[in-house]
Amino acid sequence: MAKRDLGQDGPMRAVCVIGLGLIGGSVLRAATSAGRAGWAATTSEGDAAAARAEGYSVEATVEDALRRAAAADALVVIATPLPAVREILRKVAWHAPEAWLTDVVSVKEPVSSEVGQLLPGARYAGGHPMAGTSSSGWSAGGPDLFSDAAWAVTVEDDTREDAWCEAAALALDCGARVVPTSAAEHDTAVARISHLPHVLAAVLAAVGSDGGPLAMSLAAGSFRDGTRVSAGSPELIRAMTEGNRVALLDAVDDTLGRLGAARGSLASTGSLKSTVDAGNQARRILDALGDIERERTTIPLGTRNTLRRLREIGDRGGRIRTLDANSAVAEVPPMG
Amino acid sequence: MAKRDLGQDGPMRAVCVIGLGLIGGSVLRAATSAGRAGWAATTSEGDAAAARAEGYSVEATVEDALRRAAAADALVVIATPLPAVREILRKVAWHAPEAWLTDVVSVKEPVSSEVGQLLPGARYAGGHPMAGTSSSGWSAGGPDLFSDAAWAVTVEDDTREDAWCEAAALALDCGARVVPTSAAEHDTAVARISHLPHVLAAVLAAVGSDGGPLAMSLAAGSFRDGTRVSAGSPELIRAMTEGNRVALLDAVDDTLGRLGAARGSLASTGSLKSTVDAGNQARRILDALGDIERERTTIPLGTRNTLRRLREIGDRGGRIRTLDANSAVAEVPPMG
Repeated sequence: MAKRDLGQDGPMRAVCVIGLGLIGGSVLRAATSAGRAGWAATTSEGDAAAARAEGYSVEATVEDALRRAAAADALVVIATPLPAVREILRKVAWHAPEAWLTDVVSVKEPVSSEVGQLLPGARYAGGHPMAGTSSSGWSAGGPDLFSDAAWAVTVEDDTREDAWCEAAALALDCGARVVPTSAAEHDTAVARISHLPHVLAAVLAAVGSDGGPLAMSLAAGSFRDGTRVSAGSPELIRAMTEGNRVALLDAVDDTLGRLGAARGSLASTGSLKSTVDAGNQARRILDALGDIERERTTIPLGTRNTLRRLREIGDRGGRIRTLDANSAVAEVPPMG
Repeated sequence: MAKRDLGQDGPMRAVCVIGLGLIGGSVLRAATSAGRAGWAATTSEGDAAAARAEGYSVEATVEDALRRAAAADALVVIATPLPAVREILRKVAWHAPEAWLTDVVSVKEPVSSEVGQLLPGARYAGGHPMAGTSSSGWSAGGPDLFSDAAWAVTVEDDTREDAWCEAAALALDCGARVVPTSAAEHDTAVARISHLPHVLAAVLAAVGSDGGPLAMSLAAGSFRDGTRVSAGSPELIRAMTEGNRVALLDAVDDTLGRLGAARGSLASTGSLKSTVDAGNQARRILDALGDIERERTTIPLGTRNTLRRLREIGDRGGRIRTLDANSAVAEVPPMG
């Protein structure tokens, strides 16, 4: 988490974090660890008290935090569950309409759409750090939660490049790697690799538990791993999965199709070869990503192709590692 | 792994392990660590060489190992994948028909049925240690693999109590806790908590990978955990899942039903409440099992109710912790 500024002469941009749960609390800790000024607000008195006890600045109300952000030209980070975002945006529109703005909510099209309605012309780029635990709240977080994690930062045709850089710089300061992507592509992707796993974990837990005490006493690693995320807060899981309905339905339909095909093959020929081989091959692709040599490429900022090139990096499975006033450096898996 | 004998005056019973993969190799190491004499045979030259290099006794052929077992009145442990069991049993019938016999194969009715055909009157009880990793082969194992793991040992109406005690004693010597169960109940239970998780992991890996490079680069904990076991050997996963076809079909059908209901609810009302709540509740049951106070109960051996009482322990989610010549001590979750 090296200190970084965007070539500004002044100090690093301050952050104003709204929401101090697992993610928001970790953002506040990571950003201040990286040398930024930071403060927060939360409707959870428990999280507020815990953060204050550790010496963090927590304003009495969201409005107070936002007014302070407006005065300091800070970056506002919305870190609440999706259902609370609209109300926060209304307050941003009232108290800090000019502030730099990002969020860390797990779906991006609904947030982007509400920003468009309530804060047209906002200096906004959406974000989503791909990190978490089954626990929630301030106490579950830490400054290293995002270390080496992927952190999506959205690029649309009308995204302001300076706003994108502010959101990306926060992610890099938090130790993450930035994946540029559109909100729509993000939501389609996370439906498959985050929201679907939560639905399948819940279904597996229930089907296993239906096997009664004997099944539960025999349950070991495969069942524990496959159901781990079902231990998380039902409210947060619902906010996340239900908030990405259309893309998740598509992923669930693909799952029903593949599982139905497995069932048919097992019933008719007794074979699960196609299913098991396809799963093994897919998992090998994932595991290989940790090992492959990535190509470094530099993307100049401020050109008319910058946003398009950033998004291409994300589409190819690449990520931004550093950012300065002139360019972004990306690491991209080799083609083919 | 305290030393234990069944009140015999002589040394602990020797073990003859057929197959030196992850499970068989770990059984040989754990049983000899506990003080037993032990030797093995395997058709894998790599596993044989690796075991010999660590000082273990590996016979040149399965036949040699079985003849040695017959001479020593040893416990033969079949630790091959299911498809190889029949051929091993034929050799047991020829070279060591009187030997004590158990196995560590992940499905129990097919093994039990083949033992019944090829070795009627065998001194046999089936076993299944609920432990493993995504890796396979001798090198993946170790003497502590079974530490505190559940290890099913089958009880049928015609099971010989002395044979059951021999199989259970091996499990206890390996550091495991014995779950008494019938082969049929075992297979029904593990379809839900072991074989279904492998099928779902494969399906999830494939659906996620269909999301392309962007999805793979955003994949984090929930996807990694949910697909972990799909990294295992496809041959071993197929041997296990395809070998439990009937029970697994039932578990897959329940999964299709629950997932279809989730899909319908998400599409119509936008809610996943039933699915998420049911999953959370089920996972809490599993997690609570690690914490609850269990009642200790002693089951006298050698009575006409012994086998029935053992099986009741397993049905209630209980497990055997110690065994001597006169009794088994079980720990059982409280009723209700």
